[in-house]
Amino acid sequence: MIFLSLGLLLLGARLFGELAKRFHQPAILGELLAGILLGPTVLGHLAPATSQFIFPLSGHQAEVFKGITSLAVVLFLLVVGMGVDLAAIRRQSRSGLAVSASGMLIPFGLGFLVAWYWPELLGMSGGADRQTFALFIATAMAISALPVIAKTLMDINLFSTDLGMVVISAAIFNDLVGWIIFAIIIGMMGIAAPGEGGHHSQWEVVLLALSFAAAMLTIGRWLLHRVLPWIQAHLSWPGGVLSFTLALSLFGAALSEWIGLHAIFGSFLVGVAIGDSHHLRERTRAVIEQFISFFFAPLFFASIGLRVDFIANFDPVMVAVLLVLACAGKILGCTLGARLSGMGASESWAVGWGMNSRGAMEILLGTIALSVDLINARTFVGLVVIALATSMMAGPMMQRVLRRKRTRRLVDHLSAKGFILELSGTTATEVIRELAAVVAPQAGLETAAVAEAVVERERSMSTAFGKHLAVPHARLPGLQAPLVGIGISPRGVAFAAPDGEPVHLVVMLLTSTEDNGDQIALLADVAAIFKGDEAGAQVLAVRSFTEFLALAKALGGAADQARAERERHTTVIAKAGARAGSDRGSG
Amino acid sequence: MIFLSLGLLLLGARLFGELAKRFHQPAILGELLAGILLGPTVLGHLAPATSQFIFPLSGHQAEVFKGITSLAVVLFLLVVGMGVDLAAIRRQSRSGLAVSASGMLIPFGLGFLVAWYWPELLGMSGGADRQTFALFIATAMAISALPVIAKTLMDINLFSTDLGMVVISAAIFNDLVGWIIFAIIIGMMGIAAPGEGGHHSQWEVVLLALSFAAAMLTIGRWLLHRVLPWIQAHLSWPGGVLSFTLALSLFGAALSEWIGLHAIFGSFLVGVAIGDSHHLRERTRAVIEQFISFFFAPLFFASIGLRVDFIANFDPVMVAVLLVLACAGKILGCTLGARLSGMGASESWAVGWGMNSRGAMEILLGTIALSVDLINARTFVGLVVIALATSMMAGPMMQRVLRRKRTRRLVDHLSAKGFILELSGTTATEVIRELAAVVAPQAGLETAAVAEAVVERERSMSTAFGKHLAVPHARLPGLQAPLVGIGISPRGVAFAAPDGEPVHLVVMLLTSTEDNGDQIALLADVAAIFKGDEAGAQVLAVRSFTEFLALAKALGGAADQARAERERHTTVIAKAGARAGSDRGSG
Repeated sequence: MIFLSLGLLLLGARLFGELAKRFHQPAILGELLAGILLGPTVLGHLAPATSQFIFPLSGHQAEVFKGITSLAVVLFLLVVGMGVDLAAIRRQSRSGLAVSASGMLIPFGLGFLVAWYWPELLGMSGGADRQTFALFIATAMAISALPVIAKTLMDINLFSTDLGMVVISAAIFNDLVGWIIFAIIIGMMGIAAPGEGGHHSQWEVVLLALSFAAAMLTIGRWLLHRVLPWIQAHLSWPGGVLSFTLALSLFGAALSEWIGLHAIFGSFLVGVAIGDSHHLRERTRAVIEQFISFFFAPLFFASIGLRVDFIANFDPVMVAVLLVLACAGKILGCTLGARLSGMGASESWAVGWGMNSRGAMEILLGTIALSVDLINARTFVGLVVIALATSMMAGPMMQRVLRRKRTRRLVDHLSAKGFILELSGTTATEVIRELAAVVAPQAGLETAAVAEAVVERERSMSTAFGKHLAVPHARLPGLQAPLVGIGISPRGVAFAAPDGEPVHLVVMLLTSTEDNGDQIALLADVAAIFKGDEAGAQVLAVRSFTEFLALAKALGGAADQARAERERHTTVIAKAGARAGSDRGSG
Repeated sequence: MIFLSLGLLLLGARLFGELAKRFHQPAILGELLAGILLGPTVLGHLAPATSQFIFPLSGHQAEVFKGITSLAVVLFLLVVGMGVDLAAIRRQSRSGLAVSASGMLIPFGLGFLVAWYWPELLGMSGGADRQTFALFIATAMAISALPVIAKTLMDINLFSTDLGMVVISAAIFNDLVGWIIFAIIIGMMGIAAPGEGGHHSQWEVVLLALSFAAAMLTIGRWLLHRVLPWIQAHLSWPGGVLSFTLALSLFGAALSEWIGLHAIFGSFLVGVAIGDSHHLRERTRAVIEQFISFFFAPLFFASIGLRVDFIANFDPVMVAVLLVLACAGKILGCTLGARLSGMGASESWAVGWGMNSRGAMEILLGTIALSVDLINARTFVGLVVIALATSMMAGPMMQRVLRRKRTRRLVDHLSAKGFILELSGTTATEVIRELAAVVAPQAGLETAAVAEAVVERERSMSTAFGKHLAVPHARLPGLQAPLVGIGISPRGVAFAAPDGEPVHLVVMLLTSTEDNGDQIALLADVAAIFKGDEAGAQVLAVRSFTEFLALAKALGGAADQARAERERHTTVIAKAGARAGSDRGSG
């Protein structure tokens, strides 16, 4: 029944992950919830026999299940590592270092002190060593969650700004240092790998861990950058580079275990080293990232919910203490660091709230600490709660501090009501009237007035892009949110397109007069999604609103991927240009 | 050390797989060989302690390892199923059915008779039932290997021909029936799922298996086609559809096990049903297929080599008997079927040789039969040998019978000697001379004569394609194989391009006067690889021949994927056109 349990966990994680995203929360929240529902917390209470049948706690299947989730987390850390952008750290190294250093030292110190003086309050296990425990809590308070932070910044359109890069570089540095410290703590306990460990002394572990990290980030990175084109040129495509990357992350994991560290440390370092090379192509990244993010990662995070009873082990006092400790230390530390490096007050607070996200990293840390009996189930539940709570706070708080809003994306504004599968009109004015008739009522506007405004704009200059696409648009006073109408014309509409072709897809955009940003963002998004040579034929194959929405999402995803590849190569060309062709030679 | 064993197996499989491909053999041959070298056959003899340390035969790690390989094979069968094209079966149903029926019945009958009268000769296990054993051998003789056959047909450019479609549809039908029969045999033994099985009677298993297959291929298929756009439209992209597909294949596996069949049967059916929908986009397919084909599949096939000692269990008499039985029955059966359905003599023989490939399917069958103790290790080794031998024969024999050759692909003809990273010329004639100087000596030709021929052709009409690409070419008498010269010009060359832009990439093609096909195939390939908007910038970022070759392969892979998507949608649009828009409506 291993397939049943894996299937249920994966499907549950996906469904609850989607639900979480619907409420603008990180998907990991839903994935954990799925595990909590299927695990001892809920299903185990309601139907113990079924629960034991599907998710047995011991025996053959439990062993296999644990093996698969440990493979899952190793591969997940490969993807996390691949997301680290070493160049960004270098660019923002001053501010990033200040934020990172202050943002680690303060929560680390605070956490260490509280855990050292009141270990019982934070649930130290009976057999654990007080120093190790205090170091662990200190690390847990000091760590950040790069993937969650990156996602939050992208959502509120801050990722590519200077502020965003400071936060990202601080988080990367934070994660690197945090994992090394944690790896060393686990190494000091000598209980990292089952059946392994203990053959290196504490100081050997520290030394080996630091050498491994240093080697991967220098020689390893350099070597991989040189080996990748060779692999892609001489082995089969894309099998060669895929198998090579995955095998390497497994070797990294094996080496970490041999040192006496947790396996994930090695695959994280391999990910950082290999992800840094622009020779790793966007499609290869996508295959690795997507399969792991949507198969292995949800399995792992949902399986966390199976580990303990979250209700029985919920200790409100401890959760409150941990939460205050975590937020106070991290937010104050990072804000202080940002101020010291010369950032403004509101930017500094935004950095503090952003860096406060703990997400997947905190949960991973807790899982490992629980499995080696360093903390008890109550502390574990507490860490999971602060991981989720801090991640959920970050986005809204940054938006409030900076008065930022989420970027407008076309797919968020599509609706079946504003969709016409077969336009009857054959001129621009006719189809604008048709679309206005379905769109205007949605915001209580008059159809004629809307149509007039759009036609007016159309008259000043055709909004046809070529490639069978036209985007008539207008700004209207008093609109709360952008309104989008979509019309498909199998026969084609005369729109005075630059390529002289009839238009088959008409996207009508209505935005508020008060907000220029919305119109520009949506126009750019429409162009990016539908400008490809193949989009026209695919739009004509659409047979319902649902199919259109599916197509827009798929094309949008492909466009995002193409843009990432272009940006990677533009950087390379700029660099090559700076070298003025001097090191280019034949052969 | 599970990560070390997985990493070693994956890397070994990849390296030997590449070696096999270098000799135009199926990759699976190399993958198996890697397992044989790392397993009891070689490493186990040379260094028993190391072998036991890395690949223990029992205990915790062995259990986990088995669990991961059984997950691997379930996911691999999802991909095999996704490759089944039900529409192709329908198109070629008459000939396909004739080939399939005759090509199954004859080897099935032959296999059954021999196994029934001489079970010891074919290594029946002591405890096995003679009837079950004979049915198993009969099935093993009758099965084909869809993926290997598809690959062979693509290699010799027969895939999209009528002949190719007959072979493919016969193989699909063959596989479907073969797996159902095999599932039933295993079900009859009541030992399919560990800790499961035996709760259904033999006839219940047969009935449930047939109902499951029928339901998936009708209602299941219909339902999935309708659900997919909804998932892509309303869940996150591409996570929603990825997790859903994978979860579904796990549920299919669980259902099969509950029925009493092997888990792979269910995931195969899920793959067939979901792969049939054109709503499953090419990029989603690519993510699933590539990750599984280059992570899970090599792990599984290499792990087969770990199971037994291939030298100690090699029984030459049995291998010879099985090989003759397999080839004679299958080739004669299929050739007969093809002749009866009206095909010519040489086409019919080609069909017979093509269908004879057993590849992965035979090995899977053998693995399962070995694990349930239906056959012994010697028979297992015999089946592996015939699987490999029949697959290796297929391509060369079809080429010989049909006098076909492999399609020319650009990347097969690139060489560092014919590559100029920085062209110094600024006119078409100058760069043609430069390229001729590096290319001509490779075939012992005179540089001046080659340059003259290419310039002559260029004068008649510019070979610039636009998008910074020019493809000067000429046919020369007595060339054994096509010669390709590649030159990059950062400054740009004046080539009278249709878009008026200077040319940055010059591809010079020299082919023999006797062979028109080569030139056209190569020109089409160059255009497909480099015509994209982003290719120009990426070519200019290239800094060595290796990087250029890597780029050409990556762009070629992307072009293949785009073509597949286009073909899928062209079919849909043609169909939609035939319905004359009558069933299109608003909303």
